[in-house]
Amino acid sequence: MTNITELSTTRVFGGRQTRFSHVSDVCAAPMTATVFVPDGVAHPPVVLWLSGLTCTDENFVQKAGAQRVAAELGIALVAPDTSPRGLGLDGEDEHWDFGSGAGFYVNATRAPWAAHYQMFDYVTVELPSLVAKAFSLGKRWAISGHSMGGHGALVAALREPARFVSASAFAPIANPVACGWGEKAFAGYLGEDRDAWQHYDTVCLLRQAKDVIPMLIDQGSADEFLDQYLHFDTLLMAAEPFGSKITATLREGYDHSYYFIATFIESHLRFHHQFLKAGA
Amino acid sequence: MTNITELSTTRVFGGRQTRFSHVSDVCAAPMTATVFVPDGVAHPPVVLWLSGLTCTDENFVQKAGAQRVAAELGIALVAPDTSPRGLGLDGEDEHWDFGSGAGFYVNATRAPWAAHYQMFDYVTVELPSLVAKAFSLGKRWAISGHSMGGHGALVAALREPARFVSASAFAPIANPVACGWGEKAFAGYLGEDRDAWQHYDTVCLLRQAKDVIPMLIDQGSADEFLDQYLHFDTLLMAAEPFGSKITATLREGYDHSYYFIATFIESHLRFHHQFLKAGA
Repeated sequence: MTNITELSTTRVFGGRQTRFSHVSDVCAAPMTATVFVPDGVAHPPVVLWLSGLTCTDENFVQKAGAQRVAAELGIALVAPDTSPRGLGLDGEDEHWDFGSGAGFYVNATRAPWAAHYQMFDYVTVELPSLVAKAFSLGKRWAISGHSMGGHGALVAALREPARFVSASAFAPIANPVACGWGEKAFAGYLGEDRDAWQHYDTVCLLRQAKDVIPMLIDQGSADEFLDQYLHFDTLLMAAEPFGSKITATLREGYDHSYYFIATFIESHLRFHHQFLKAGA
Repeated sequence: MTNITELSTTRVFGGRQTRFSHVSDVCAAPMTATVFVPDGVAHPPVVLWLSGLTCTDENFVQKAGAQRVAAELGIALVAPDTSPRGLGLDGEDEHWDFGSGAGFYVNATRAPWAAHYQMFDYVTVELPSLVAKAFSLGKRWAISGHSMGGHGALVAALREPARFVSASAFAPIANPVACGWGEKAFAGYLGEDRDAWQHYDTVCLLRQAKDVIPMLIDQGSADEFLDQYLHFDTLLMAAEPFGSKITATLREGYDHSYYFIATFIESHLRFHHQFLKAGA
């Protein structure tokens, strides 16, 4: 495995999970990521998972229980970190919702972030290419994520539909241009030109889209961020023209935590599998 | 729910998980615990889970994915903390393997620990009685645990067989009187009389037992603590006279982590269910 430094390797659910670091070209920074590869499948298809604010590459692999279903279905899982870290940038570690752990999956254009926070290109191009080679993964990829990562997954699917067969999200930040988290992040990474922000906003992109890849979205009704940050109702309206290609469901009583993800990750992986397996 | 203070309640896998604190009588200290109750089952049977060194009541419920199978089988899960905390005892927080997070499920007899570290009585008597009442749980209980908690589960099953229908363990500290962790903890909590230690040692108890409740034990072959601390071979020899009542299996390639537990927890819950359901 060239260009990657293995940090740990662990047997889980009859597959192998490897955490590694590497130096990202597009981020000009060391990055960590975790990859689960099921046993006995040559060139497995992949679900790329994008995590939420404050998470590293480890939250999903430790808490969601996804490896069980991935092993059954013969799917690999790829979980990147949520930002570069430890670069010494001014303000890098001052806020839990900006800088470290909060890359928002954008290509930053504003200094000093632009030199390193190229997370959109990192998760859609550089990391998939690297891990596909290093771990002999297949060419069919789906994308999923939670909260900030749900935003990242849907935006990636809308902007780069040829790279993914399907997309899903748990409690995505669906309309970041219209909520505090998104306004803070986009102003910091992209500057004050709000037109530029719309290229990273699921609702804005849906309003201009002619077609979409299949999408599955779940949102908990007891999510503490639902009203102020997630804009699920706005997402439903923007998704409506696409009919059955976008399935979005409100789950009664579930909150924003990994317990919500653990409960529904099986249905998301089975959703992706129907598209991943075709012609894999 | 008298006498408990709810810290959080979360919907997961169609059940409800509650974290709470209460003041323990036997420990004369505030304690925290987490209980998962499946929907739609009156007075569900229970699996009591004992965690390992450094863990709180949250590691198991966040990382093992046990609620999925527990919900399917109609089993409640009870996860206590691994010690009292924050008591200001001399040396309480100086070692990761003694004091806070390392109660070893013994009733301490040595000062200052004896006044508070009554973890054997706490997990086998006081806590079950409290949560059975507060959460309307059933009377049939099984017990399981990991590492120090696997030790606790097997010792509880051997010393209090009437309280549990079955027991299981992941990578238990099977012969603590003969390993560094156990020697340090038992000397500190119980004093230098090694005869007293044997009452908290699975191998010693097995050698004197006439009968045992059904037991299931899994041990990873790549466990970093296997040779020096866990004494799986000694456990196999001590278990041999009980034939099929004790099933112990070495799992190739698995380590000591929660990934190992997550992989095999389903088989442990299904094992317990066959005994829990009878006459529940």
